[in-house]
Amino acid sequence: MALCDSHSANALTLESVRDSLVRQEDTIVYALIERARFPINSPAYDHSYAKIPGFSGSLLQFLVRETEALQAKAGRFTNPEEHPFFPDDLLPSLVPPYNYTQVLHPPAVFINMNKSIWEMYFEKLLALFAAPGDDGNYASTAASDLVCLQALSRRIHYGKLVAEVKFRESPQDYEPAIRAQDRDALMKLLTFESVEEKVKKRVAKKAMVFGEDVTLDNKEEKRGKYKVDPSIVSRLYGEWVMPLTKLVEVEYLLHRLD
Amino acid sequence: MALCDSHSANALTLESVRDSLVRQEDTIVYALIERARFPINSPAYDHSYAKIPGFSGSLLQFLVRETEALQAKAGRFTNPEEHPFFPDDLLPSLVPPYNYTQVLHPPAVFINMNKSIWEMYFEKLLALFAAPGDDGNYASTAASDLVCLQALSRRIHYGKLVAEVKFRESPQDYEPAIRAQDRDALMKLLTFESVEEKVKKRVAKKAMVFGEDVTLDNKEEKRGKYKVDPSIVSRLYGEWVMPLTKLVEVEYLLHRLD
Repeated sequence: MALCDSHSANALTLESVRDSLVRQEDTIVYALIERARFPINSPAYDHSYAKIPGFSGSLLQFLVRETEALQAKAGRFTNPEEHPFFPDDLLPSLVPPYNYTQVLHPPAVFINMNKSIWEMYFEKLLALFAAPGDDGNYASTAASDLVCLQALSRRIHYGKLVAEVKFRESPQDYEPAIRAQDRDALMKLLTFESVEEKVKKRVAKKAMVFGEDVTLDNKEEKRGKYKVDPSIVSRLYGEWVMPLTKLVEVEYLLHRLD
Repeated sequence: MALCDSHSANALTLESVRDSLVRQEDTIVYALIERARFPINSPAYDHSYAKIPGFSGSLLQFLVRETEALQAKAGRFTNPEEHPFFPDDLLPSLVPPYNYTQVLHPPAVFINMNKSIWEMYFEKLLALFAAPGDDGNYASTAASDLVCLQALSRRIHYGKLVAEVKFRESPQDYEPAIRAQDRDALMKLLTFESVEEKVKKRVAKKAMVFGEDVTLDNKEEKRGKYKVDPSIVSRLYGEWVMPLTKLVEVEYLLHRLD
């Protein structure tokens, strides 16, 4: 979080960005584990279930949209690290402005990948780690989904800061591709397969460590039963989080010389 | 969560209640770790900061009250395991009712310890584990506080189910003290110091396991640096969570023969 506070304009380094990305992995793993407390609870996503007066959509959509509207009033989206899923319905912040340092190039503000994140989460990821079933806790389930969505969104849009810090470290590496508006060349410059493999292994390990049943009897706890399958967290990163982050980075760099 | 779903009326056993309590420890530890991402961020709690039109109180109070109002519309508090912090401001659920099994004795519904939980959290606990400082993320901080508050509230009010299952297992042990309305005798019957010591040790261990920095290099990760001090989680349980749970149990049993 320190990156965007008012005292850290000069704290934007590859090291500080990396530390934040590593810490955000923990947040994502905790969030998935907590969502997995509940079964899939499909009525929360069923447009014909909720029938809330004045709202057409699922209970999940209702809760995400209204919670975002509320958090917007409280200033959440004045932080450039935060991106709403329903940007069209937001009221401006009602609280005194906080002086977040503007480290990003101004066109960054228009990059919002939340539609892709939403589709990935609900159409692909969720069924991979939430058990079948229905326990009636739809509001709590939706609140857990929102925590997952916000954590994934923050991580993926952190690509803006990743791109900025990489650009600042060696602008000469990126400028030709930016001037040529060459997405493929930028994607190539931003891809380090050995680093990505390491990240996938680390998040799987986090799913093991954070998702085990901890008991006072040491022997019992290494049974290989985890609250969320570590291979799914690894796949989440490999197939979706890192590719989407790189898309954010590419979009950002394409406008870095605007 | 299974205890209150519609298929588990006969699943109320000491074992199932214990399993839920143990799992809820994980939720509480994750929630504290996630709140500790942010510094104390005192403007979130300052009544003179927010100045939201039509609301007098802190930004935290605003967000908790309004989020609860929203979750109430989505049916959160129709689950007897959930208890609001602002019960007076809630609208009824707008979604079709879910058939939660009523395992609790009806007067249980009036027991709500959230005022004590709120005071404990903001006046004692928070300063013990949130670092000094201000990073401007007040809305996100308040959302993290709400996750902590809801997890603690669910755990502590689970005392109703603990008391019910204990009463069902041996009513003869409790009936004399209930008829005499003898709180001290009930408290004595519900206190098992060796079990409480074990719980305190287990939650401290969870704070260690879940709060470590996980790296692929095994040597690095045992440095004894945790995201939340394990001794504070142990103290949270010993001084507040277990005593408040027993208060819930006593209140419940006092009305068990009504």
